[in-house]
Amino acid sequence: MALKVYGDRMSEPTRAVLIFCKKNGIDFEEILVDVLKGDQFSPKYKAINPMNQIPAIVDGQLKLFESHAILIYLCCAFPGVASHWYPGDPAKRAKIHSILDWHHSYLRRGAAGLVFNSILAPLNGMRSYPQIIIQAEEILLRSLSKLENVWLKDGSFLGGSSQPSIADLSLACEVMQLELLSEKDYHRILSPYKKVKKWIEDTRSATAPYFDEVHELLFESPKRDSRENGDTLWEK
Amino acid sequence: MALKVYGDRMSEPTRAVLIFCKKNGIDFEEILVDVLKGDQFSPKYKAINPMNQIPAIVDGQLKLFESHAILIYLCCAFPGVASHWYPGDPAKRAKIHSILDWHHSYLRRGAAGLVFNSILAPLNGMRSYPQIIIQAEEILLRSLSKLENVWLKDGSFLGGSSQPSIADLSLACEVMQLELLSEKDYHRILSPYKKVKKWIEDTRSATAPYFDEVHELLFESPKRDSRENGDTLWEK
Repeated sequence: MALKVYGDRMSEPTRAVLIFCKKNGIDFEEILVDVLKGDQFSPKYKAINPMNQIPAIVDGQLKLFESHAILIYLCCAFPGVASHWYPGDPAKRAKIHSILDWHHSYLRRGAAGLVFNSILAPLNGMRSYPQIIIQAEEILLRSLSKLENVWLKDGSFLGGSSQPSIADLSLACEVMQLELLSEKDYHRILSPYKKVKKWIEDTRSATAPYFDEVHELLFESPKRDSRENGDTLWEK
Repeated sequence: MALKVYGDRMSEPTRAVLIFCKKNGIDFEEILVDVLKGDQFSPKYKAINPMNQIPAIVDGQLKLFESHAILIYLCCAFPGVASHWYPGDPAKRAKIHSILDWHHSYLRRGAAGLVFNSILAPLNGMRSYPQIIIQAEEILLRSLSKLENVWLKDGSFLGGSSQPSIADLSLACEVMQLELLSEKDYHRILSPYKKVKKWIEDTRSATAPYFDEVHELLFESPKRDSRENGDTLWEK
């Protein structure tokens, strides 16, 4: 029975897992959990992931969620995965873990917090608060600066590597989520970070053609209409 | 040269790393980075951790930060560590990663967010916003419910284990940080979660006498005075 990947391509961690499987030739079945329709709260999905998050995988008896845990598991359980994705050397592996852990509290908190509270919550009739949006943007800007000046200080990929790891894929998919912002906000936030922009391109090239294929839905999302009108989505 | 552990016992991830080293007989030197004095921003510490966070370790050439990454590294690099802390089996290990990743976005975000914004920020002359405190408490309550009903559903330790893993130690130290709340708030928040309270005791027993020894500073902190007066620290 092939690996099952449950998720929605509008979610950045789902995209990271899908791109990883495709790039590494892992045989899998993709099962849509439509988050806008609330599929993640269905009893059927709750039996797979009681936290109601996406993505999740089922591999034989194992039900697993949290995208970083999934990516690490795939590197260890599928023998065809090249070692640069998750090196065996304890010190190199520790650096990957450090980047992935940092991601949770900084880049993800900033980027996902900003996109959710400024765009997705209002679009779905949920309340959002200006102070929370301002805090998320502050965290995002600090995180992009650390990405540029610490993680991308040496080498094309995070932590000074010459080839991508699962950390590059996960964090690049996070930054890609900022495409949902208006053109004006996107450029205001991203333009100072030249190394970050080059690294996104390098990660895209290293995972071609799957990076673009899996991000296609994001580019086609309704938000693109307002981006093309140059609207800004929140007041500073 | 012995392992160096940089941190402050007032920080919950620092405590997890210290208890782990002591319990597993790892020879190390503890170096105080006094966060209230801003030591984490000194040039000397920045050379160890450019993110200005604690804890961090130096082991030979390796400089490493993020407590989960540190705990995993210690399990892999120090041969005397018992396997229950970080099992070798890919599926069991994946569950540990899943709990550790979940911790970042839920339990830690709620607990650390609440304690920082309601107590530490005002104590240190920093602004805090009621909406951010309310959001942190909501996340904390949801996280405690998941801890009780998902992670502690089967077995004494997280994920159904009969012995503690690094996830138990990390998350238990997080919940212990709630001791900084007033007596009234602490009981209002924790009292519905019987399994969580028992699990804290089980983790404490499994790591005795180091759990109490390393938490001693927390119990002696100035906040205890207001707890003993029964003050509540924020308005609902």
